[in-house]
Amino acid sequence: MQLSTTGSGETVYLNGLFLPANEARISPFDRGFLFAHAAYEVTAMYDGRLVDWPGHAARLARTLEGIALPVPVADLEALHIELADRNAMAEGLVYLQVTGGAYGFRDFAGPESLDPSVFMFVSPKALIGAAARDGIAAVSLPDTRWRRRDFKTTQLLSQALAYRTAKAAGAQTAFMHEDGTVTEAASANAWIVTAEGTLVTRDLSTDILHGITRAKALSLLNPADVSVEERSFSLEEVRGAREAFTTSAGAIIAPVIALDGAPIGDGQPGPVTRQVQRLYYEAMGADVASVAPWATP
Amino acid sequence: MQLSTTGSGETVYLNGLFLPANEARISPFDRGFLFAHAAYEVTAMYDGRLVDWPGHAARLARTLEGIALPVPVADLEALHIELADRNAMAEGLVYLQVTGGAYGFRDFAGPESLDPSVFMFVSPKALIGAAARDGIAAVSLPDTRWRRRDFKTTQLLSQALAYRTAKAAGAQTAFMHEDGTVTEAASANAWIVTAEGTLVTRDLSTDILHGITRAKALSLLNPADVSVEERSFSLEEVRGAREAFTTSAGAIIAPVIALDGAPIGDGQPGPVTRQVQRLYYEAMGADVASVAPWATP
Repeated sequence: MQLSTTGSGETVYLNGLFLPANEARISPFDRGFLFAHAAYEVTAMYDGRLVDWPGHAARLARTLEGIALPVPVADLEALHIELADRNAMAEGLVYLQVTGGAYGFRDFAGPESLDPSVFMFVSPKALIGAAARDGIAAVSLPDTRWRRRDFKTTQLLSQALAYRTAKAAGAQTAFMHEDGTVTEAASANAWIVTAEGTLVTRDLSTDILHGITRAKALSLLNPADVSVEERSFSLEEVRGAREAFTTSAGAIIAPVIALDGAPIGDGQPGPVTRQVQRLYYEAMGADVASVAPWATP
Repeated sequence: MQLSTTGSGETVYLNGLFLPANEARISPFDRGFLFAHAAYEVTAMYDGRLVDWPGHAARLARTLEGIALPVPVADLEALHIELADRNAMAEGLVYLQVTGGAYGFRDFAGPESLDPSVFMFVSPKALIGAAARDGIAAVSLPDTRWRRRDFKTTQLLSQALAYRTAKAAGAQTAFMHEDGTVTEAASANAWIVTAEGTLVTRDLSTDILHGITRAKALSLLNPADVSVEERSFSLEEVRGAREAFTTSAGAIIAPVIALDGAPIGDGQPGPVTRQVQRLYYEAMGADVASVAPWATP
């Protein structure tokens, strides 16, 4: 139930080559290593199909433009499929990282025209597992990230430290907060169902990642079934919430059943969370009654 | 006069081995590459001696503790000297990066006990050059960095983008600002001499890097000669300043003679800047009359 881990398949992709994961090597002069000058995406694959690929592709393009990186010439969607095939993976995650490339020296500005490095690996895993069924615990932490969290970059040190803190506390994620309100979970968007029964997730801005799973979940909800608000909410609202969950490509919809050791609601995944899970799993093409009977009404 | 560049000597150090720079390779699963989970230092060497090494070593230890990285077992000072020797470098910069290491998978939290990667290279260069003599130009930009700027990590994307913006504008650095005040230059501490003749540099906090060159320069100043204040200052104060300069290990004391295309003071390095340069160069053991005659009174 360690949500933050993705193992690696046997074959990875690096700059035009497919090669064994333990033989992949990059230059330590790569701008991804020296400056965190790199974009990344994690795309789920279910039943042999990429989940929400157009959303991931569009966000990648936006990040690349925002951090002055060129779009790789390779057909990234085809590479995702081929890498999954080479690893015989029908279900799991595909990781893609695009960096500013390596030039044998360290220069903050770098060449005017950059030659990007592209690294990809897969992580075979069941997407709908114990965490989705049983829920996870969160700790609360200040959000120390940089100001352009709408760009999905490898400046992930805050998140890495947040997961270490969570793990040490026996939790699996963190609710990060700033200026009195929750921004995101450690590498996922955060949602609550308020005491009044309204489903709330933070509105989009440069303060949070524009989650692909978040957007898809919102699109699947029927306003006649549940009242939805996109706005900031406080840690106090989380503590008083009926339910909470996170959305991300890696863990899809993960119920959050405790914050800082105290139960949220009755400490069990709630009915709205189950409804969102069900809608999302169905949209992925899953047979919910079979793979997630706990998410059926 | 590209301050942001450091070339590489022929031999680098990587995880216990000295090897040709173009043969050095790390795993793309390294936490420095995936998460920017890495600390770094750049230490100047002058006349065969490391400049302010104890300060760099102390700051490295502080960063490592702050980002949950173990201290490498290697004798880092001895490695600095040996790497310089192997590159026959008596003057230039030594770069050191310590990362969270590689484990063949991607996990935000990582193992409880981390096995760090250590990468070092040298950059032979004249430390007292044309930029120190003639000055550099700056652009102003919002500071988008993370909240723990007192830790010297490879989360350097804001700075990389700032240098690219500066370069495109024909400038060599950036004055980054936040909430109305200047935080730092792109990879250096920022100083001004106000219209009233007071030397001002921002006070230490988590908002800025605790520059080793900054601390040394402050220690060398005689309060009887110049009034010094450690406090925040605005871009307006920079525009109305008599002088401005930056301090960093790489460029030592660099006069800043223009901001956003407008001259600062009379657009020439000023007398207080020259005084600080002179004091610092003397402390390094330089024969100022010979290597920096322009800095003599």
